[in-house]
Amino acid sequence: MRASRFLRVALILTLLLSMAQAAEKSDAPLRAFLDQWVKAFTAKDTKAVMALYAPDVLAYDIVPPLAYVGKDAYGKDYQEFFADFDGPVGMEIRDLHTGMSGDLGYILAFEHLTGTSKSSGKVDVWLRITTIVRKIDGRWLDIHDHASVPADFATGKAALDLKP
Amino acid sequence: MRASRFLRVALILTLLLSMAQAAEKSDAPLRAFLDQWVKAFTAKDTKAVMALYAPDVLAYDIVPPLAYVGKDAYGKDYQEFFADFDGPVGMEIRDLHTGMSGDLGYILAFEHLTGTSKSSGKVDVWLRITTIVRKIDGRWLDIHDHASVPADFATGKAALDLKP
Repeated sequence: MRASRFLRVALILTLLLSMAQAAEKSDAPLRAFLDQWVKAFTAKDTKAVMALYAPDVLAYDIVPPLAYVGKDAYGKDYQEFFADFDGPVGMEIRDLHTGMSGDLGYILAFEHLTGTSKSSGKVDVWLRITTIVRKIDGRWLDIHDHASVPADFATGKAALDLKP
Repeated sequence: MRASRFLRVALILTLLLSMAQAAEKSDAPLRAFLDQWVKAFTAKDTKAVMALYAPDVLAYDIVPPLAYVGKDAYGKDYQEFFADFDGPVGMEIRDLHTGMSGDLGYILAFEHLTGTSKSSGKVDVWLRITTIVRKIDGRWLDIHDHASVPADFATGKAALDLKP
């Protein structure tokens, strides 16, 4: 009876320990990071979005130029993007892949962006997004974004109508 | 005299130690990886290129579809790309950024792709490229590529004429 109780306690402790180890190695912080970004993005809240970025972020955005260097430049890009949207901005994440090692992590996904743009009308596009985050002073911050659609070299068109 | 010799030796040892530590923390393996890729790419050597990829690579390429899943699919993409080029393929790397932690590393850069495509004529385009590598069984392998140009939502065009 005592042996059985001891075994039960040992089993529970082992389970708790492996759960704790799994939590430490899991990509939960990356998923939480993405949830925060989606929440701030769909709220069109530039300040909340930019709180997720490192000062020296380097972004290859869906819109020109080739790169946005630093938080100020990228924040201005976000602000103009939000201001161009008439009403809500929709964002759905699909085919999410995450991974991490040390203080570096990555997030890969398809993003379904929807809404109405003042400059280009109805927006309903699936983007590919790569995000690299680094743990800086205990907080995960975005150091790199790459958002795009494929291109058709023969026609010169951006493939804005692809679906996953 | 002996004290001065001791100090000199101590100084040299300190320098060597800090150099060894710097080498370990440096991004030299990532630069070597990129050099290998450029060499294989400009040789249009699909086998040598694909030796740099992990079996479960996920690639968001410059051409459709949205994603290439796994080494076989991405290798076929490379093969078709090389076969479509009439003569040599030029590749110049600019604005390189690298970083690593644990067994994860990233490579960000502009790529100047030049040559003559059988299907779409003269190619002279600057791409943005994000590559994520992971150390697997002691070798750095590419687990993710993202290559693109920005898009113009108003005209639907791919921005194939941007320069860094």
